[in-house]
Amino acid sequence: MPLKITDVKTILTAPAGIRLVVVKVLTDQPGLYGLGCATFTQRARVVQTAVDEYLRPFLLGKNPLDIEDIWQSAFVSSYWRNGPVLNNALSGVDMALWDILGKVAGVPVYQLLGGKCRSAVDTYRHASGSDFQEVEDQVRGFLQAGYRHVRAQVAIPGMGTYGSGETTGADDVPENRRTEIWEPRPYVRAIPRLFEHLRNQLGDEVELIHDVHERVPPILAMGLAKDLEQHRLFYLEDPFSPEDAGYFSQLRQQSSTPLAMGELFNNPHEWIPLVSGRLIDFMRVHISQIGGLTPARKMAAMCELFGVRTAWHGPGDVSPVGHAANIHLDLAVPNFGIQEAHEFNQAEQDVFPGCPELRDGYYDVNDGPGLGIDIDETLAAKFPITDAPPFDMFWGNYRRADGTSVKP
Amino acid sequence: MPLKITDVKTILTAPAGIRLVVVKVLTDQPGLYGLGCATFTQRARVVQTAVDEYLRPFLLGKNPLDIEDIWQSAFVSSYWRNGPVLNNALSGVDMALWDILGKVAGVPVYQLLGGKCRSAVDTYRHASGSDFQEVEDQVRGFLQAGYRHVRAQVAIPGMGTYGSGETTGADDVPENRRTEIWEPRPYVRAIPRLFEHLRNQLGDEVELIHDVHERVPPILAMGLAKDLEQHRLFYLEDPFSPEDAGYFSQLRQQSSTPLAMGELFNNPHEWIPLVSGRLIDFMRVHISQIGGLTPARKMAAMCELFGVRTAWHGPGDVSPVGHAANIHLDLAVPNFGIQEAHEFNQAEQDVFPGCPELRDGYYDVNDGPGLGIDIDETLAAKFPITDAPPFDMFWGNYRRADGTSVKP
Amino acid sequence: MPLKITDVKTILTAPAGIRLVVVKVLTDQPGLYGLGCATFTQRARVVQTAVDEYLRPFLLGKNPLDIEDIWQSAFVSSYWRNGPVLNNALSGVDMALWDILGKVAGVPVYQLLGGKCRSAVDTYRHASGSDFQEVEDQVRGFLQAGYRHVRAQVAIPGMGTYGSGETTGADDVPENRRTEIWEPRPYVRAIPRLFEHLRNQLGDEVELIHDVHERVPPILAMGLAKDLEQHRLFYLEDPFSPEDAGYFSQLRQQSSTPLAMGELFNNPHEWIPLVSGRLIDFMRVHISQIGGLTPARKMAAMCELFGVRTAWHGPGDVSPVGHAANIHLDLAVPNFGIQEAHEFNQAEQDVFPGCPELRDGYYDVNDGPGLGIDIDETLAAKFPITDAPPFDMFWGNYRRADGTSVKP
Amino acid sequence: MPLKITDVKTILTAPAGIRLVVVKVLTDQPGLYGLGCATFTQRARVVQTAVDEYLRPFLLGKNPLDIEDIWQSAFVSSYWRNGPVLNNALSGVDMALWDILGKVAGVPVYQLLGGKCRSAVDTYRHASGSDFQEVEDQVRGFLQAGYRHVRAQVAIPGMGTYGSGETTGADDVPENRRTEIWEPRPYVRAIPRLFEHLRNQLGDEVELIHDVHERVPPILAMGLAKDLEQHRLFYLEDPFSPEDAGYFSQLRQQSSTPLAMGELFNNPHEWIPLVSGRLIDFMRVHISQIGGLTPARKMAAMCELFGVRTAWHGPGDVSPVGHAANIHLDLAVPNFGIQEAHEFNQAEQDVFPGCPELRDGYYDVNDGPGLGIDIDETLAAKFPITDAPPFDMFWGNYRRADGTSVKP
Repeated sequence: MPLKITDVKTILTAPAGIRLVVVKVLTDQPGLYGLGCATFTQRARVVQTAVDEYLRPFLLGKNPLDIEDIWQSAFVSSYWRNGPVLNNALSGVDMALWDILGKVAGVPVYQLLGGKCRSAVDTYRHASGSDFQEVEDQVRGFLQAGYRHVRAQVAIPGMGTYGSGETTGADDVPENRRTEIWEPRPYVRAIPRLFEHLRNQLGDEVELIHDVHERVPPILAMGLAKDLEQHRLFYLEDPFSPEDAGYFSQLRQQSSTPLAMGELFNNPHEWIPLVSGRLIDFMRVHISQIGGLTPARKMAAMCELFGVRTAWHGPGDVSPVGHAANIHLDLAVPNFGIQEAHEFNQAEQDVFPGCPELRDGYYDVNDGPGLGIDIDETLAAKFPITDAPPFDMFWGNYRRADGTSVKP
Repeated sequence: MPLKITDVKTILTAPAGIRLVVVKVLTDQPGLYGLGCATFTQRARVVQTAVDEYLRPFLLGKNPLDIEDIWQSAFVSSYWRNGPVLNNALSGVDMALWDILGKVAGVPVYQLLGGKCRSAVDTYRHASGSDFQEVEDQVRGFLQAGYRHVRAQVAIPGMGTYGSGETTGADDVPENRRTEIWEPRPYVRAIPRLFEHLRNQLGDEVELIHDVHERVPPILAMGLAKDLEQHRLFYLEDPFSPEDAGYFSQLRQQSSTPLAMGELFNNPHEWIPLVSGRLIDFMRVHISQIGGLTPARKMAAMCELFGVRTAWHGPGDVSPVGHAANIHLDLAVPNFGIQEAHEFNQAEQDVFPGCPELRDGYYDVNDGPGLGIDIDETLAAKFPITDAPPFDMFWGNYRRADGTSVKP
Repeated sequence: MPLKITDVKTILTAPAGIRLVVVKVLTDQPGLYGLGCATFTQRARVVQTAVDEYLRPFLLGKNPLDIEDIWQSAFVSSYWRNGPVLNNALSGVDMALWDILGKVAGVPVYQLLGGKCRSAVDTYRHASGSDFQEVEDQVRGFLQAGYRHVRAQVAIPGMGTYGSGETTGADDVPENRRTEIWEPRPYVRAIPRLFEHLRNQLGDEVELIHDVHERVPPILAMGLAKDLEQHRLFYLEDPFSPEDAGYFSQLRQQSSTPLAMGELFNNPHEWIPLVSGRLIDFMRVHISQIGGLTPARKMAAMCELFGVRTAWHGPGDVSPVGHAANIHLDLAVPNFGIQEAHEFNQAEQDVFPGCPELRDGYYDVNDGPGLGIDIDETLAAKFPITDAPPFDMFWGNYRRADGTSVKP
Repeated sequence: MPLKITDVKTILTAPAGIRLVVVKVLTDQPGLYGLGCATFTQRARVVQTAVDEYLRPFLLGKNPLDIEDIWQSAFVSSYWRNGPVLNNALSGVDMALWDILGKVAGVPVYQLLGGKCRSAVDTYRHASGSDFQEVEDQVRGFLQAGYRHVRAQVAIPGMGTYGSGETTGADDVPENRRTEIWEPRPYVRAIPRLFEHLRNQLGDEVELIHDVHERVPPILAMGLAKDLEQHRLFYLEDPFSPEDAGYFSQLRQQSSTPLAMGELFNNPHEWIPLVSGRLIDFMRVHISQIGGLTPARKMAAMCELFGVRTAWHGPGDVSPVGHAANIHLDLAVPNFGIQEAHEFNQAEQDVFPGCPELRDGYYDVNDGPGLGIDIDETLAAKFPITDAPPFDMFWGNYRRADGTSVKP
């Protein structure tokens, strides 16, 4: 008798304040279940509806080990496919099925993917500050803690600057109309100076990353990549919005700054040409966003064939389950590049027993079967998600000084 | 004092059995509201959650006449954008804002889009049958009713054939595991014979369309387009799955059969290369799927610049509100091609006062202000949607004879 | 304590006359070992030397579950990599490691690759004959035996025709100088007539394949693909020699005949452009030739992303172990196309317990853990390989009537 | 009566410690034989098996003057062709046939290739060191010895750096698991500083070369080529692994640093696009690796047509016979660029009478008939090859700090 899926549950929890979506797939073998990350934090309840109302009845009674078949048939079960909601929902199921397979097989998921290609998963952390000195101090802190790679962002005075903590929204405006001011030209003038400062103060050995976060017109991103070339970034992240990915071939003609892209991708038409054209150096997708481990390992395989390395999206809006999936893939693919890391607070560690740990700047993954991570549902329920603005609507409220909406 | 949005409601109704999703945006001007289509029939409740939980609080208090700004800021408000769920939700709002603007201005929406380019909207209907004769009879019926264009599909014996009504699913299997058998090669052998029959019986003047519905491997679609060349189709629809759109350039080198594509598109990376490459002749998107009238009129503009004509998706899974939006755009763009038509039943007409009408194969749109269509919410509530499978899960259950899942 | 590789053995055996090369990797866990196919039948002893003298000492003491790492490091261990000898040697090890992992995990290899995507593996067989009637009779025989797909080759009078059994070599010449006469133009004239005959006699439903076997100048292959278009082949195989793969883009502009290619490929530069250019429809590599399951599953993943289907090489010069590997991958990848089949004689079945079986034209694979196949070494030794010409040298002895050597 | 091949022998010898493979083809004319280089030093015994077990019986009785025909028919005699093993085996035969033809004709091989285009073959040598000063000293040494071109490599502290003699492998690990640490980013930071130092100390006239040896990710190689542009290298060698050759077009858009590539090539699909695309400036193949003089002179011909110059691979893992072949071709082709040189020790000179000599940085080749070089088989036998690791397995054991295998 093959195994059967007996239930599919969505668990929403926010132990660190960020809404996480985790899917639990249960089977008819007592105690055998799997967990997957379906975290689209800005639209958590939409993903929940997609899982509970549509994927659950689709899955009941099926064999959880038919991973590829379930992925393929679920993907087209809505006819209109792709997109951040349906992909995340599908990812929650997909990772859970790999977790179940690992438990059935008695091996970690990385072993199912071909085994360890390396003994450790190198990571980077986020430094920021209101001025160059504060950024430098934060970078030094990470270096002292053992990290070798740090992302550096700095506030641009008077602007709500991505990654810097700086905000400009007025307090007396309803939250859904509060805006952050953003101007691209002061930003592209400031960033080369930031990295000149950091190189002067910190030397050449620290590996520095910067995230443009897609907020500047394409030609300014090209200029920035050229200006930064002399500062030898580990990579420049998201220089273009996904809508402007057609500019990569031109950037590539002008600069050898290493490029990372993809946290917003959810459609193969977005990334296949960038890989086959060898136009980016690091693939940065949010694995749950593209539909889980099943498509991610195929993406990694194609990237390997074109000399592109992985750098999966991994801040706090990836659940510990999703981080575990990232790390299992990081360990198993030859073309691993770097892993964005998140330091889990105590609540996250308590809610997710087996939560990955950071040691000397490396991620350490549990060697238990499957993804090696569990969820304490009772405890998870003590950290309910909130639906309060502004977090949900935040992203749309970056505006130019004249009020123009900006793609963040 | 600018107008303000005071409420946003999602109305689910199924007067013809198909689940429709309509969004109503209310304002602080008594009696002033707009309607938009957000119909993703297979995932209706997911769209509803997206509107009710996220777009509603995002919109309250905003000026409904800021149509473009609301579209842009809402589009990025979830950070991860695109996709069938969020695009449909946004479309519901977007069309409603155009409806409001029309009412405020006292003119039909087509007037806001530049005014009528034509006095009538030519359409096509769907003929099908279990054999060639039955298809022929249905085509004749439409010709007698005044239509000039007919889509023709035929059942392939033993297969669950798209558009033919033929199904093969066994009754004794749980609905989420019931499958339809599909084999591509018998299909591509039969279709040229169907059109040979129709041309022999009906002559050359009737404009014939065929929908591949994306179910054959790319090379077989190319062969089919070549085989059908002699039968001078009005167009061949969806020869490839959206994932295989990269094959259009090869098809184009081999056949002059006119091509239509796009009902599954929801990301600009899917359609922009096809238009700029002049690789398709008719753009078939489901307007609510790409986010509403605001992106659709830009798409139409770009298509005009490249000589591509419109043929918006328009069967029963577009609400009468969506059909009205289609028709307003059809009237206003110079590069209109054809409009897929749906015959509304009495219940649909009753629920949606001002519902478009078909006369002599042309769509007639109400000349009232805005979209010229209303909804009777009390009556709509009498046609609640059902969440019963198999309709939701149907699409994933087409399978090859060996059990392989097929992209439908 | 991780597992350790304690020995690596090469087993040469020829239970059906064709020299097979099988690698056995043993571990320090009693009774735990894996098998892999390393069959380069024309150069069996060269592969043996590569395994015994170089890969064996490279592997001793390593963890057999480090599959990806062993593949990557072994691949570059000779510095000069790729090529039919070293790839086959590496494949023998690689498949054996997947076999070991499956046994450790207690699941079939197809389950490790993501589980079954289909319930059966459809196959094709080889029909041939000295004239059209004989070919027709053989095709009918396969159809009666339940097959749905048949490859058809016919003798060209006076020529040593590939796949037809026809030879022209004079008996009184030393074997290494015996030649087969081959002229491409009579061949390309005859083949369309063969398929016209078969279609007239057998109808349209049987799926027919033809193998050009790379023996004609590129422009004649293009003409042949056009001539055959009307006969709707399932695919035309190896229209060009691998050296002429640059002609595919031109063939593609002229014909929609489905194309299969790749049994001679051993370098990614040969196949990556064909896939990313969507220039072939079926990938035909000999899996051991490209280095085993590890690269094959990545190749399958990339092919899936570009709409290319698999049709792994599978005649008698693939060992039963290699056939099992083919079938496990066939079951697990969504983009499976067809599997070339070989009917194993009793000796092959005896030497390889768990040997795949053909039933109604489908391959049936053992559901035991790992590859589900074993080798009886004592029995294998009773079928020693022979090094006698002409088989080894056969391929180079096709010559044009004027004596020019032909690429076969 | 045409000449006949009566025997083919493989001679393995290591007079300088490096395993050399030489093929001797004997004829039925007493004393008439030829020598060819088949040196794949890391897999010497595999090449030996290929020659002894397969090429020998293929050749016996054939006319050794049918050079082109033997090359063509031998190339396809294994059906699966190319690859470092079979190409080297074929090269051993091919060069020997050219040697025989020269002896029959009574002229040097360069004369058969069209005669001398130049009176001398300019060369370069390898300087290295543990720091910049030591490299500078070695470069000065070569300049004083008359050389005009020097390759410069420097150790990166703590890393097993190619060409520098620096190793990091621990002694207490079994040889097949000993690894060398390698990190690309410290390397690409150090090299521009090395050349700044050398230019400052040595001026602009010395022609400097640097070998990346394929060990850095593509984007870092591009950055390095840009950084080195100001130091006017004679050429930058192997900036990419052969798998990443698709990146050359991008490098070419960003830097005018002259590029050399190819020592790992063994398949025409690797080099043809680079030449027809004018993407490299110097072709660096190991001539025996591509199959000998017959394909090398065609490669040189095509390179001439596209303005690409030759720089055949020529360190100690090319036998003196192979060096002689390099030099004959160097003398005869108009598009000669430079020749990598090896200083033969006394043992090599004794084993290979007629061994090329270096004078004032030029190679001097014997003007005797054929290749002008012989082998003392009795003496050769006194320098048996060893099969001891680590040399064989060394290449796979470069690893990143986290344990990831590196393509060297």
